[in-house]
Amino acid sequence: MWRLYQFPLCPFSRKVRLLLGEKGIACELSKEYPWARRDEFVDLNPAVQTPVMVDTERGVTLIDSTVICEFFEETVSKAAMLNGTATDRAEARRLATWFDTIFFRDVTAPLLFERMLKRIVYKQAPDGQVLRTAMKAAVEHLDYLDYLLDHHNWVAGSQMSMADLAAAAQISIADYLGGIDWKSHEQAKRWYVGMKSRPSFRPLLSERMEGIVPPADYDKLDL
Amino acid sequence: MWRLYQFPLCPFSRKVRLLLGEKGIACELSKEYPWARRDEFVDLNPAVQTPVMVDTERGVTLIDSTVICEFFEETVSKAAMLNGTATDRAEARRLATWFDTIFFRDVTAPLLFERMLKRIVYKQAPDGQVLRTAMKAAVEHLDYLDYLLDHHNWVAGSQMSMADLAAAAQISIADYLGGIDWKSHEQAKRWYVGMKSRPSFRPLLSERMEGIVPPADYDKLDL
Ligand SMILES: N[C@@H](CCC(=O)N[C@@H](CS)C(=O)NCC(=O)O)C(=O)O
Ligand SMILES: N[C@@H](CCC(=O)N[C@@H](CS)C(=O)NCC(=O)O)C(=O)O
Repeated sequence: MWRLYQFPLCPFSRKVRLLLGEKGIACELSKEYPWARRDEFVDLNPAVQTPVMVDTERGVTLIDSTVICEFFEETVSKAAMLNGTATDRAEARRLATWFDTIFFRDVTAPLLFERMLKRIVYKQAPDGQVLRTAMKAAVEHLDYLDYLLDHHNWVAGSQMSMADLAAAAQISIADYLGGIDWKSHEQAKRWYVGMKSRPSFRPLLSERMEGIVPPADYDKLDL
Repeated sequence: MWRLYQFPLCPFSRKVRLLLGEKGIACELSKEYPWARRDEFVDLNPAVQTPVMVDTERGVTLIDSTVICEFFEETVSKAAMLNGTATDRAEARRLATWFDTIFFRDVTAPLLFERMLKRIVYKQAPDGQVLRTAMKAAVEHLDYLDYLLDHHNWVAGSQMSMADLAAAAQISIADYLGGIDWKSHEQAKRWYVGMKSRPSFRPLLSERMEGIVPPADYDKLDL
């Protein structure tokens, strides 16, 4: 049995969980806060980051969300998320990476720092200026998502792909932390309601991070 | 014909160039400074980062070094850099990502900021404290590389892989910027001299970034 080390607001763990859900792969969850730097976790992953996946019976350890997703794409054919030609797959990977790196850097990471780490680790108030900048970036990045969805039904093309899972994972954490204003993002909103209603997504939406309450609409299927 | 947008001190472009060299794929180079935010480049890559690869005849644009490498791994079988089982490939990808993200974050990125961007963009002196912290991290990270090479001949196992290319790319930029002290890293040094002597690496070592002179040993084959 696979075990996933993660915590409820880790967007990269969410991406992996969405993929596992789509593919129907069972997995046990272990709550792991990377900032606690637990000795056994540091030994498991020298990068000291979640997610990490372990299959103790087979002695397999998988590290990094993209590496984990490539592994399951290679080994489980159900619900393939990198389809089409090599160029199509490159586009799905590009957009997954864009959400994992650029959206994370500009939106999710500052929200996590200001509204989660400052509350539970540093016991400080969030910096309003940083929050405003992150929310402004969220608007611009949702404009880009609207533009992508103007051209095709899914983020990277005519089929659901890793790009949709990465996007939904990042956006859902930003949304939990009050960083998303859906106003005037009709395309993105319609796509996101579709993602939220998937069986792979439902369990994630019902989880809560201790001490941090999401907005009322966060887990609603009609925004 | 492929065209690669890059600049001489971009470690991610180096990783791609090493792979192209090993696979024998020809490509023209265009010098691109991402910080200049050239309009055509922003249109080409919304992430505004190098490397980007374009094949104008076939209308293909590839963005992100890892995405580019996966593309050529999938389409060109010569000099495969992700070999073995799915678990072996996950380990090669993990270590490539470790150098691309952790080594880059702790060593290459601060060196690039202090010794390249501050000189050519901000016209400021480097911050000695930041440089010392980066060089201390380089020592720890080379210890990790020594440890990996204690267990097998190449970074991720018994064969050369993407992990070797990613590691050599990051380390060569850190070395160019005077951030690497090879003292007491015998394993890493022996491996790096082997990497430097490969035909794929030689052209990179002879390039210079305007106004920034590497240490005397930088392109020597005997350290
Ligand atoms: N490239 C990694 C990034 C993972 C990551 O940044 N995880 C965060 C939690 S959301 C973390 O562990 N941060 C702690 C740290 O970077 O020290 C992946 O895709 O898995
Ligand atoms: N994940 C990207 C990272 C590329 C990257 O960070 N490139 C640097 C140059 S070495 C860059 O363009 N930096 C400008 C920026 O991030 O705004 C890749 O692997 O290609």
